[in-house]
Amino acid sequence: MTGTTSAKTNPGRFFEDYSVGKVIAHAVPRTVKMGERALYHALYPARHALHSADTFAQSCGLPYSPLDDLVTFHTVFGKTVPDISLNAVANLGYAEGRWITPLWPGDTITATSEVIGVKENSSGTSGVVWVRTTGRNQHGEVLLTYVRWVMVRKRGTGPAAAAVVPTLSDSVAVTDLVIPPGLDLTAYDFTLSGEPHRLRDYAVGEIIDHVDGVTVEEAEHMLATRLWQNTAKVHFDATHRPDGRRLIYGGHVISIARALSFNGLANAQMIVALNGGAHANPCFAGDTVRAWSQVLDVADTPAPGVGAIRLRTVATKGAAGNLRDAAGKYSPDVLLDLDYWALMPQ
Amino acid sequence: MTGTTSAKTNPGRFFEDYSVGKVIAHAVPRTVKMGERALYHALYPARHALHSADTFAQSCGLPYSPLDDLVTFHTVFGKTVPDISLNAVANLGYAEGRWITPLWPGDTITATSEVIGVKENSSGTSGVVWVRTTGRNQHGEVLLTYVRWVMVRKRGTGPAAAAVVPTLSDSVAVTDLVIPPGLDLTAYDFTLSGEPHRLRDYAVGEIIDHVDGVTVEEAEHMLATRLWQNTAKVHFDATHRPDGRRLIYGGHVISIARALSFNGLANAQMIVALNGGAHANPCFAGDTVRAWSQVLDVADTPAPGVGAIRLRTVATKGAAGNLRDAAGKYSPDVLLDLDYWALMPQ
Amino acid sequence: MTGTTSAKTNPGRFFEDYSVGKVIAHAVPRTVKMGERALYHALYPARHALHSADTFAQSCGLPYSPLDDLVTFHTVFGKTVPDISLNAVANLGYAEGRWITPLWPGDTITATSEVIGVKENSSGTSGVVWVRTTGRNQHGEVLLTYVRWVMVRKRGTGPAAAAVVPTLSDSVAVTDLVIPPGLDLTAYDFTLSGEPHRLRDYAVGEIIDHVDGVTVEEAEHMLATRLWQNTAKVHFDATHRPDGRRLIYGGHVISIARALSFNGLANAQMIVALNGGAHANPCFAGDTVRAWSQVLDVADTPAPGVGAIRLRTVATKGAAGNLRDAAGKYSPDVLLDLDYWALMPQ
Repeated sequence: MTGTTSAKTNPGRFFEDYSVGKVIAHAVPRTVKMGERALYHALYPARHALHSADTFAQSCGLPYSPLDDLVTFHTVFGKTVPDISLNAVANLGYAEGRWITPLWPGDTITATSEVIGVKENSSGTSGVVWVRTTGRNQHGEVLLTYVRWVMVRKRGTGPAAAAVVPTLSDSVAVTDLVIPPGLDLTAYDFTLSGEPHRLRDYAVGEIIDHVDGVTVEEAEHMLATRLWQNTAKVHFDATHRPDGRRLIYGGHVISIARALSFNGLANAQMIVALNGGAHANPCFAGDTVRAWSQVLDVADTPAPGVGAIRLRTVATKGAAGNLRDAAGKYSPDVLLDLDYWALMPQ
Repeated sequence: MTGTTSAKTNPGRFFEDYSVGKVIAHAVPRTVKMGERALYHALYPARHALHSADTFAQSCGLPYSPLDDLVTFHTVFGKTVPDISLNAVANLGYAEGRWITPLWPGDTITATSEVIGVKENSSGTSGVVWVRTTGRNQHGEVLLTYVRWVMVRKRGTGPAAAAVVPTLSDSVAVTDLVIPPGLDLTAYDFTLSGEPHRLRDYAVGEIIDHVDGVTVEEAEHMLATRLWQNTAKVHFDATHRPDGRRLIYGGHVISIARALSFNGLANAQMIVALNGGAHANPCFAGDTVRAWSQVLDVADTPAPGVGAIRLRTVATKGAAGNLRDAAGKYSPDVLLDLDYWALMPQ
Repeated sequence: MTGTTSAKTNPGRFFEDYSVGKVIAHAVPRTVKMGERALYHALYPARHALHSADTFAQSCGLPYSPLDDLVTFHTVFGKTVPDISLNAVANLGYAEGRWITPLWPGDTITATSEVIGVKENSSGTSGVVWVRTTGRNQHGEVLLTYVRWVMVRKRGTGPAAAAVVPTLSDSVAVTDLVIPPGLDLTAYDFTLSGEPHRLRDYAVGEIIDHVDGVTVEEAEHMLATRLWQNTAKVHFDATHRPDGRRLIYGGHVISIARALSFNGLANAQMIVALNGGAHANPCFAGDTVRAWSQVLDVADTPAPGVGAIRLRTVATKGAAGNLRDAAGKYSPDVLLDLDYWALMPQ
């Protein structure tokens, strides 16, 4: 390399670059179609019937099978990475996530994020940034909106802006869930869906062990993370960490856990809200991911035959007999603790 | 995990759960399109022109290129796993397989299996179950039907039902082969297809060594097996076997062998019958799969320019100089021994 | 294996089989659609907006998003392998590559190669063969044409034909670049594309370090290389080389480097010419690929708002502080040295 070296690459934003009220338009719109759907099935043991077959979706009142709700999440999340988490130290949490419009094959996704909170850490070297991210389709309709907060490095050592900490709901209210127009589960086929259990068969507090485990390979999580155009180098560059390991994108674990949950929750068909979530510990290639879920709530919705089930799904990479230790800290084997609403036939 | 643990997951069926005449409707219909086709090309070195190009298929009288015949097989097979082979000890054999209707992009596949035989083993701890599985498209047309038999664990130690052992054909008769409507190979382009050999260029008894080898990786066979929504845990969970190895889905070896057979059998374009097959030894990541074929029969069909060739394709993971040892047992390096009919230009 | 062994497999061509003027029609046409596009995004960190979103492509005057220009290259290249490089010792160079027509989803690709040069090596055991390869769509329109030369083994020891060495251009002239009909970058959205830099922001001689690195896995390069129906056994068979390593298809490195170049060259949207290229050293699984580019030229084109930038993109697997050693030989860490024209908004 001899010549003038330029500074045209994206260094990512630092804590000082975020101010409350600022709206960031994320780059690189993305059209997704049946290829992304096929890859989703290859990457995850996904079997929920509504996302597997046009005929099943049609029997539920939809025009055809929408892409998995997590394809929306991953694609929108991926778009935010260069602007939000390129210099992030940690992905701290999610709240107020709502899926508003299904993602249909052929849709083009764009995303924006509004900064809704900033708070410098006591160390003075980093701070927490809260953003509300919104994904839209080519018609400008909102696909998904959610709040995420991350810890971001400071560029310098100067004084920070006044702290603004947003007030966030603990969970999305049932009345705020958006049911896809036309969805009607009154003629739901429990044989084709894979399990006979309907909404009221689940008791609040009930725990379902999803039985199966998936051992993750480097090639798989990189294929997935690239598919969502997520560019965070920790996922791809084995020379980045001193231990030579690539960190698996947290969303990859979300999709594995959700897919494993088919076994016991085959009728929890669509995710409509993300109440909260924590990536409790990092996941690496070679880990065998398992999952269990606890029923947090069940509720009716105004749509015909459609109920809502609030679930906590926990992914682990070992026995993880206890979720947390005596001090309230996640056990080392816990990977993910996710709280969400899904739609289920009544 | 604290709370009431539920029993909503699928424990799989045991030997006692199968009775002759019972029909099982398998769950989770599946729509397949061009994404599955692209993945098939990424997963296997598949080059048969009829499945590669719409233009080539059209020159053979078809509206466009159908999905590979083995996509039909794998998808139907995958649907049966939770009901037939979740507690299977071994996949013992196939017979009377016939492809009836091509699989077109956009088709939705469902599957049912009828129990046609049961026979307890002398040990009293397991038994053999025969099922005739039928895959259908969204119009109710039969895509594929085949008989499979598996060894299944008994749940208890009680007496078993009377043995019923079905009579199965050694091979599908030429007159029972179904030629796709419209197929016409009279204007077949041997340059574009890749080889000049037509039906009568092959002599019964002739052996073709397909030359190439493919070393298999864990990520590849898991992507493939998930794509077919096959949930058998031996393929995905490295903690399942004491030796920490994942067993590769036998169908993955079938597709590798079939794809390798292009080199010498480029004009054996469509598989129309499965006469029999044995997964002689397990395949693991790191194995280098090779294949050879022997011509068992050649025959004419009533369709214009269309002949049928009966092939035995054997996949090995080493030299495997001899297929069987002195005692008639498969050599340890033999992975697959498959007997099928394919269509070839006369 | 007992029976008559046949010789129906393709042994590949040897040096003596090439004569100047001969045109080889390559086998196995291929239809590519959205599945191939999704896989391209999973295999490479590709983010150029024109190839990512229909809406973005439409804002640039195109009917929808074409497949990546390198999908055309890889698919055409793959078709040539059985005829050109099955017995090749080395892939020596490229020249005069021009993309003429964009590749649209649904197109079927065929390829032919004309032998334009032959020259026996002084050793008498091999020779160099030059071919001009042309890929066409189902309408017979040229998608891509390029010259490649390879070193090929001789079959025998007899005298060779007289040497014919073609005269090749050092680079494609700006006036010979073909701009896709309708392309209009006057309303180009630099926010959605990801970077603000336009043609005249780049100075000739300027160097851009693309920052990120990608560690390559065996499964990934084999999925990619199979997708392009490239059958060269060095990429797939771990038993082929004495060291048990599989050689990564050089085009895989081209696509990684091009995708990494987004970071600093996000607006270099379409590749329209390949001036030259060298695969300087082999790439193996486990290597972490990085890239940097140097601006060689900038030029206007007659199309509205469309400029052309000539780039040299170099991929390395380590620090590679110097491209070449004192003797002018590529440093061992250099994988690729590529010279091409791309289109960029003025």
